[in-house]
Amino acid sequence: MKKITIGIFGAGTVGGGVIEIIEKQKSKFQKLGLDIYIKKCGVRNPEKYRDQFSSSIEWVTNINDILNDPEIDIVVECIGGIDIAKDIVFGALNQGKPVVTANKALLAAHWDECQSLSTKNEATLAFEAAVGGGLPIIRTMNTHLKSDNIQKISGILNGTTNFILSKMDTENVDYDEVLKEAQALGFAEADPTADVEGYDIRAKIAILANLAWDTSVDETTISTKGISKITLADFEKAHKNKATIKLLATAEKKGENIKCSVSPVIVPYSEILGQINGATNIVSIQSEFLGETTIVGQGAGRFPTANSVVTDIIQISNKI
Amino acid sequence: MKKITIGIFGAGTVGGGVIEIIEKQKSKFQKLGLDIYIKKCGVRNPEKYRDQFSSSIEWVTNINDILNDPEIDIVVECIGGIDIAKDIVFGALNQGKPVVTANKALLAAHWDECQSLSTKNEATLAFEAAVGGGLPIIRTMNTHLKSDNIQKISGILNGTTNFILSKMDTENVDYDEVLKEAQALGFAEADPTADVEGYDIRAKIAILANLAWDTSVDETTISTKGISKITLADFEKAHKNKATIKLLATAEKKGENIKCSVSPVIVPYSEILGQINGATNIVSIQSEFLGETTIVGQGAGRFPTANSVVTDIIQISNKI
Repeated sequence: MKKITIGIFGAGTVGGGVIEIIEKQKSKFQKLGLDIYIKKCGVRNPEKYRDQFSSSIEWVTNINDILNDPEIDIVVECIGGIDIAKDIVFGALNQGKPVVTANKALLAAHWDECQSLSTKNEATLAFEAAVGGGLPIIRTMNTHLKSDNIQKISGILNGTTNFILSKMDTENVDYDEVLKEAQALGFAEADPTADVEGYDIRAKIAILANLAWDTSVDETTISTKGISKITLADFEKAHKNKATIKLLATAEKKGENIKCSVSPVIVPYSEILGQINGATNIVSIQSEFLGETTIVGQGAGRFPTANSVVTDIIQISNKI
Repeated sequence: MKKITIGIFGAGTVGGGVIEIIEKQKSKFQKLGLDIYIKKCGVRNPEKYRDQFSSSIEWVTNINDILNDPEIDIVVECIGGIDIAKDIVFGALNQGKPVVTANKALLAAHWDECQSLSTKNEATLAFEAAVGGGLPIIRTMNTHLKSDNIQKISGILNGTTNFILSKMDTENVDYDEVLKEAQALGFAEADPTADVEGYDIRAKIAILANLAWDTSVDETTISTKGISKITLADFEKAHKNKATIKLLATAEKKGENIKCSVSPVIVPYSEILGQINGATNIVSIQSEFLGETTIVGQGAGRFPTANSVVTDIIQISNKI
């Protein structure tokens, strides 16, 4: 039995889900030869979490309490945002420790540094949960599509905007009202800009393009149109053509030229894309040998996203 | 650069596709640090293939010419059927050589022996291409779902029957006529029994159930109904409910009880399942943490299937 010691940052939606899955599946992972043990969890306010989880976790507030702990085999970053997350991810990689992160914003903004630190220090940087929540898209690109030549990627990769568009479509309620409902339900943030203006999905398509073509797309140059200007009149027009509206991200390679974009598009109900509602995400990849491969699953939510983090932990553990 | 020497059996649809992809992607694989070299190919009649492929391949007719060659790192079995394939796969595993196979019939019929030989000899047995052709279903189950608890699997996993049903559905042509057309086009075999009576898809669902629940389902006990009795009248009835007919395989775990079945089912056009036509395959997996994860792609054909074999070769090569 291999003992794997984890230091995790964040115990909120995703981080807390990771802790729960690791505790619940302990005996299952032991059957795989892995004794995964969460030694420390870094949070701003330990009192908030102490009673929620196993008493064996040591709650810390200083990132170095985890980064400098020689017993910790894998550092897991689930706090989101860029500043502190960057100190954590870069700090761990610089110590040669493998890192699992769900942080698309950090990856899209600092792709080259992340990759070069990982390579230089021979420390794996895994991020299945960063794109598409519970969808196995990163590992499919890193394995199943590694032998193929990817031509185009397209996807509905933001649950908040898909929830809003689905509601506008089926319940004929206008944008402002649905946004308020989404905020009340916790599906949209108090400041919804990153989601509704397309910046979240833009970061995700940049990451997929980087992986597909071993490049480094500057996300700020991607043509990006969000959903805040979509009206019920737009849906009426779409309905006349048996179609709906979805916020779609695409990345395409033509010759040496890579073009990414984010934009609302009209999609017939008769296509699979037209049936992807709420928090469900979809990614379709066109490639030379495989033709079209499509993955559909839960793009957000505590357990789908946490499961992706945990599977990254398992894959790294198997290599240690 | 790591040199990986391959011995492959079969140079037909799948085997030939594997050779082509490996030759075409040589420089791509070298960038991954792998120099993959096909040393020998075992076929019944070398004259049939010699001129089709690279002159550096040594064509052999005796399986021991590959199995006993100490230079060969990975044995690839693409001849199908059970008898000789079994000698090849078991022979290679017994020598401690990793094996890649696309052979669902062999795996379903001899699951326990395959697994125990692989474990005993510490030799990987990889079979992504055996289920769903180009779909990344085996590796998704072996990685992304490894941390989760799978509850149910369902899928359209046979291209021949899906081609026939799609044609009956959209062109109102009866079963016998479409079957003849499928045979003429090479989509159905001269003896179509294994496909149309559901034995092919039965083997695939048995393999998925074995993987999902670490068990060994006796495929001959699976309730199996094929499509040879489906009439245009059945489609007329389905159409009245805005639905079509698909040959669906399912596997479900309730408590300790695992139940598999293969049967034509009525599926609304409004569901994704209802839109899967021709050689396209779909697998949906319900699991505790991920909810529903669905993969759609090309379930048959030279390059999609060969790509799955090649990605297995790459994954094994990375571990050697």
